[in-house]
Amino acid sequence: MPGVHIEQFSVKYEYPVHFTEDVFGKDNAILADSIEGDGASRVCFYIDSGVVEPRPQLIKKIKEYCAAHEDVMSLLHDPVIVPGGESCKNGWDGVRRVMTQLGEMKMCRQSYVIAVGGGSLLDMVGFAASLVHRGIRLIRIPTTVLAQNDAGVGVKNGMNEHGVKNYVGTFAPPRAVINDSEFLESLEARDWCGGIAEAFKVAIIKDEAFLEFLCDSATDLRNRDMALMAELVQRCAVLHLEHISGNGDPFEFGSARPLDFGHWAAHRLEVMSAFVLGHGQAVSIGMAIDACYACKKKMISEAHLEVILKGLVESGLPIWDPLLERRDRKGRMEILAGIEDFREHLGGQLCITLPSPVGSKVEVHELDADLIDEAVLFLDGYVRKAETDENSV
Amino acid sequence: MPGVHIEQFSVKYEYPVHFTEDVFGKDNAILADSIEGDGASRVCFYIDSGVVEPRPQLIKKIKEYCAAHEDVMSLLHDPVIVPGGESCKNGWDGVRRVMTQLGEMKMCRQSYVIAVGGGSLLDMVGFAASLVHRGIRLIRIPTTVLAQNDAGVGVKNGMNEHGVKNYVGTFAPPRAVINDSEFLESLEARDWCGGIAEAFKVAIIKDEAFLEFLCDSATDLRNRDMALMAELVQRCAVLHLEHISGNGDPFEFGSARPLDFGHWAAHRLEVMSAFVLGHGQAVSIGMAIDACYACKKKMISEAHLEVILKGLVESGLPIWDPLLERRDRKGRMEILAGIEDFREHLGGQLCITLPSPVGSKVEVHELDADLIDEAVLFLDGYVRKAETDENSV
Repeated sequence: MPGVHIEQFSVKYEYPVHFTEDVFGKDNAILADSIEGDGASRVCFYIDSGVVEPRPQLIKKIKEYCAAHEDVMSLLHDPVIVPGGESCKNGWDGVRRVMTQLGEMKMCRQSYVIAVGGGSLLDMVGFAASLVHRGIRLIRIPTTVLAQNDAGVGVKNGMNEHGVKNYVGTFAPPRAVINDSEFLESLEARDWCGGIAEAFKVAIIKDEAFLEFLCDSATDLRNRDMALMAELVQRCAVLHLEHISGNGDPFEFGSARPLDFGHWAAHRLEVMSAFVLGHGQAVSIGMAIDACYACKKKMISEAHLEVILKGLVESGLPIWDPLLERRDRKGRMEILAGIEDFREHLGGQLCITLPSPVGSKVEVHELDADLIDEAVLFLDGYVRKAETDENSV
Repeated sequence: MPGVHIEQFSVKYEYPVHFTEDVFGKDNAILADSIEGDGASRVCFYIDSGVVEPRPQLIKKIKEYCAAHEDVMSLLHDPVIVPGGESCKNGWDGVRRVMTQLGEMKMCRQSYVIAVGGGSLLDMVGFAASLVHRGIRLIRIPTTVLAQNDAGVGVKNGMNEHGVKNYVGTFAPPRAVINDSEFLESLEARDWCGGIAEAFKVAIIKDEAFLEFLCDSATDLRNRDMALMAELVQRCAVLHLEHISGNGDPFEFGSARPLDFGHWAAHRLEVMSAFVLGHGQAVSIGMAIDACYACKKKMISEAHLEVILKGLVESGLPIWDPLLERRDRKGRMEILAGIEDFREHLGGQLCITLPSPVGSKVEVHELDADLIDEAVLFLDGYVRKAETDENSV
């Protein structure tokens, strides 16, 4: 009997990423205009508790917004407040709770889940929404720098399990992303600075001019210059989106790689710290290690390495952590276990992105453990020297 | 600030559906040829216990097959035997067990999960595989009529929760489907006949010539004519695949509908029976109800209704069940609750597919409860009359 070859079919995706202020303001139509459907679509909100706490009027404002737009959105349930942060996406509890609630709220495939929060909350809620009825529509309103310029604008979600970051998840593009810069104002220093790390990541491997902008602006960014931050977020988000839509393999079925410079060590450090270390901070350390490594491999110059390390430090990001000193019984650095985790997660051959030269990237398929050891030692010395210099001033 | 519109991007899918015999035979290269990758890809097998029981040599044969093809497939773990049937996809236990095992087996995004079994096992294992690392490659080897001609060749998986069939799931096309007709030989009568129902489904709404074939062959099909069954499976699978690749919305984001004639009542009957009623049997009853309804609405002729009911009965399928008599306190038929479940699951407006005329379909957006009551009463009478006629022979 002959086989039947199913004809190739394509699934098309397209979504806007808006940049705005006061997204729930009376005169801001962006969210309401993002809801499609005949008549009023059922909507529900999941909101990061870290966003609500400094904004006691937010829930009221959201309800008023929905009431003002009742022709397109039907809010039948009070917005659900969920503690955000990495712990919300550790294990199935949060995801299952959301899935059950979506059933109780009678959400259907043409309803909208609107998630307001940091990257972890967006991941957890987005994952749950992507499973119920095989996918309820999602609108993301990211509220941290990292979520607005990276995690929240892309096509993935994820949940941590078995000690592996994003062990489970789906590719599930949102219907729209709305970045409201006002949410950034209340961020703690850690979250404000953490998001800068992803901007460095994409700049170092894709856009030297953007790296110059970041290094020139580092101190001002750290001191919370909002205009500079808004520019950073937008440039970074655009680079991220271009990577997704331009690489021909947005769901990474083949060898397409996400923008993950510095991430093999970062994911491992996050797990080793039991997620006490923020993602941006971990990525900063991971990039510092891989930049040193790239320099030792003559892929980038020593001058560029110095520019990168200085830029990260001036932005308020760490480039070293005591976790780097941990070794197993054989004297092997514990972070090295992250290499195999990383290979396994992406699949196939190991594939590590490194800058070569700055502003462009190469993929390497093995890492020299001794050189990583040297890179970490170099960073230790770099940080100690900087501390000594500071004390001697 | 202006918004950024992410450029439209497409995700392409394409997979073969093979028809073969003795898939694990030494000289059958189809499975080995379905594995892509540099060198040997890691593979693992999940096998329906109902398939293994009548074939005590199957596991050994699979291991020998992998050994003979070790250049392309690396089997590091014994095939996992899982009790199949609807209960394996009820709730998270089975899915979570598979996800944990896939991690322990170090399966990555470029490894292959090969699922061998009925539709429920394929759904459960496929759902788990679609989540780990955001998707491990899946090859389906369906072993029942229903899985070979319908559920196993499509793009969805699903898991039952909260009393709703396929409450959660994903759209996750396989890498290949391999239909081996030899697996059908050991099927119990219920599973053999059950798969015929999905063939009637697609024939009644898409292909009158196929319906004639089914009605002409009904008695022989019931009596296990394998050549006729092989033709049924292939024609039905092709119609199913054409529907997916040809409708422009394979993941049902908009108003595209799956081929689900007769399914609103079927899903409800399955849940009411705690899945004692087989899916095919439930679909047969659901189609009988909706065909009567369509006849009362003058969409199909009485002659065609008679052809359909006779064909179903001669194929060994039920067209009535005592569950249809259940009424709630208000006297409303309990199956009617299936209409709202169905709307909610598909999303948006209620959309019920009916034949009009036979061989083509229309979608209606409401059902008249009184007419359904009449349809059920008619079927009750039809079945009683057939029994009386039989007894008086």
